[in-house]
Amino acid sequence: MSRFFSHKFDRLTPYTPGEQPQDKQYIKLNTNESPFPPSEKAQTAAAEAAARLQLYPDPTCKELREKLAALYGVGPEEVILTNGSDEVLNFAFMAWCDDTRPALFPDITYGFYKVFAELYSLPYTTCPLAEDFSVRIEDYMGCHKTVFLANPNAPTGLALSVAQVEEIVKSNPDSIVVIDEAYVDFGGESCVPLIRQYDNLLVTGTFSKSRSMAGARLGFGFACPALIQDLETLRYSTNPYNINRMTMAAGLGQLADEDTTRANCRTVMENRTYTAEKLTAMGFTVIPSCTNFLFASHPAITGKDLYLKLKDRGVLVRHFDTPRLTAYNRITIGSREQMDALLAATQAILEE
Amino acid sequence: MSRFFSHKFDRLTPYTPGEQPQDKQYIKLNTNESPFPPSEKAQTAAAEAAARLQLYPDPTCKELREKLAALYGVGPEEVILTNGSDEVLNFAFMAWCDDTRPALFPDITYGFYKVFAELYSLPYTTCPLAEDFSVRIEDYMGCHKTVFLANPNAPTGLALSVAQVEEIVKSNPDSIVVIDEAYVDFGGESCVPLIRQYDNLLVTGTFSKSRSMAGARLGFGFACPALIQDLETLRYSTNPYNINRMTMAAGLGQLADEDTTRANCRTVMENRTYTAEKLTAMGFTVIPSCTNFLFASHPAITGKDLYLKLKDRGVLVRHFDTPRLTAYNRITIGSREQMDALLAATQAILEE
Repeated sequence: MSRFFSHKFDRLTPYTPGEQPQDKQYIKLNTNESPFPPSEKAQTAAAEAAARLQLYPDPTCKELREKLAALYGVGPEEVILTNGSDEVLNFAFMAWCDDTRPALFPDITYGFYKVFAELYSLPYTTCPLAEDFSVRIEDYMGCHKTVFLANPNAPTGLALSVAQVEEIVKSNPDSIVVIDEAYVDFGGESCVPLIRQYDNLLVTGTFSKSRSMAGARLGFGFACPALIQDLETLRYSTNPYNINRMTMAAGLGQLADEDTTRANCRTVMENRTYTAEKLTAMGFTVIPSCTNFLFASHPAITGKDLYLKLKDRGVLVRHFDTPRLTAYNRITIGSREQMDALLAATQAILEE
Repeated sequence: MSRFFSHKFDRLTPYTPGEQPQDKQYIKLNTNESPFPPSEKAQTAAAEAAARLQLYPDPTCKELREKLAALYGVGPEEVILTNGSDEVLNFAFMAWCDDTRPALFPDITYGFYKVFAELYSLPYTTCPLAEDFSVRIEDYMGCHKTVFLANPNAPTGLALSVAQVEEIVKSNPDSIVVIDEAYVDFGGESCVPLIRQYDNLLVTGTFSKSRSMAGARLGFGFACPALIQDLETLRYSTNPYNINRMTMAAGLGQLADEDTTRANCRTVMENRTYTAEKLTAMGFTVIPSCTNFLFASHPAITGKDLYLKLKDRGVLVRHFDTPRLTAYNRITIGSREQMDALLAATQAILEE
């Protein structure tokens, strides 16, 4: 840090993205990427857009917003598009948290929530997950705080039902509930339809997982028009051209191929069942997952040891070095070949 | 705004990007875009990158950072890459302005500085430009404030020399000076070499103007490693994957074609001289420009009237509706054909 860095950041610890070591080719199961390429339509559209890069993109993202809204059964004024879903979450922390409205989220969840709260010196508290890693919804009922819940949650993979989320939303008429649905397409239930009934609900999503576009940076949020307007005010006050032309075009192309997206999600879910069964047979505890990853521990080896030994064998998984998670690793569900490689390496490590 | 929007934004007025009307095809001279497409190498690289969108981009932007650093004669640890140069400016306001270090910038300059200051409730003051629109450097000497200067300035097009900037930087050893060089490639002098001598200087730039990539969103900053580290801390606390794969690839492709970039800049500068001469002959006052735009007024018509009449005739320029700028319009320098269309429309309006 320089001697000029504002003291308001003294307590800030930045987010740590999943490692991307360059020393060799890994089987990369550590950042929940899709094993499938984007749709051909997305690729073609992006390539065409690259020829017109000298012109700014449409700051209103009109065409993509309309198409996404239609797909989810809402109006275009109920959607915001962002540079990855991190950006819409960033705006949500800015917009709706302050000294009068602290943030509230689980102790174990997406690591960025804490970073956003610290970045803006926002008061926040965390609620411990239950012993089985489930979200205790009573902790969030009538809390008078701005609630952030990843649903399904990460890195656990567990999901609340729409009915449970609705209870939380309904019990907090004077504060916002943000439901982060990054992983919903792999077996969760989406709360998007609830935004038409509740003026205090934001549902966020991303093209990074089910839509194979992590490299394009495209996220979105659904809420009532007044909440979207709050977020748009912040977007126009930070980066009105936040979605570049190629990403916008790729997003449109990808949405034209929803059948492939759905088929890819089904394949990931089949590979998840397959992997969970094999890991369970090896003696792992595997948390039931509604996502494109598994969260698993084994009585004979610490999470960190398994992570390091898998890395030695060319397989990357994600280990979170915190007390409650020390036994576990988060394993992205990739192709059947990738999962077989993970399973073989794991078997070999357990037999060492 | 919703009833939940934090009161800390009560004073916030978002940035207004240049209009992009969809009612008909305009000759678009209102957002300082390049009339030239990006390099073929940029287009090809972007198209190739689109096939691997399922994977996150490299959050360290290693390859592009190294290439850009080499081109500017600095080290890779002296560069940060951002989602347009707005993002590096955003980080600079966050990092180095607070109640102990207010921001200082001219009354007439890039409109986003004021927005960033208001967004974070940062104290700021503005200094009036001189009557001839030049920056009075004495206003910024030994000021104990975080200085933001667009150089060349917008929308005036006037530039300070490197020696003048150095005086400002040298006189403020205890505060940061940010020099925003978005337009420097059209005849300004770059201050990048100064970053090796001064630990309180950030120089920002963009691929949006001279490098024909406004639609890709790629900006950068040069500074000593400690300052870059401050900015990286904020990048990792907001959006570590801020540069998508396609933009990163396009940036690399564009940098492989610097000869074309330089030739394009020369053409724009020739078209600028041509246009300035013709406008002057029509009776316009044209501010000498080091940028890809002209700032011009005419005694016989208000800036707003000319802007509206040009728009009627299918030519878009940018009018800023503030007291000191009311007589003027900012006119982007495009192709010779575009400039001839502007000149013909202007002539016709003046003869009405």
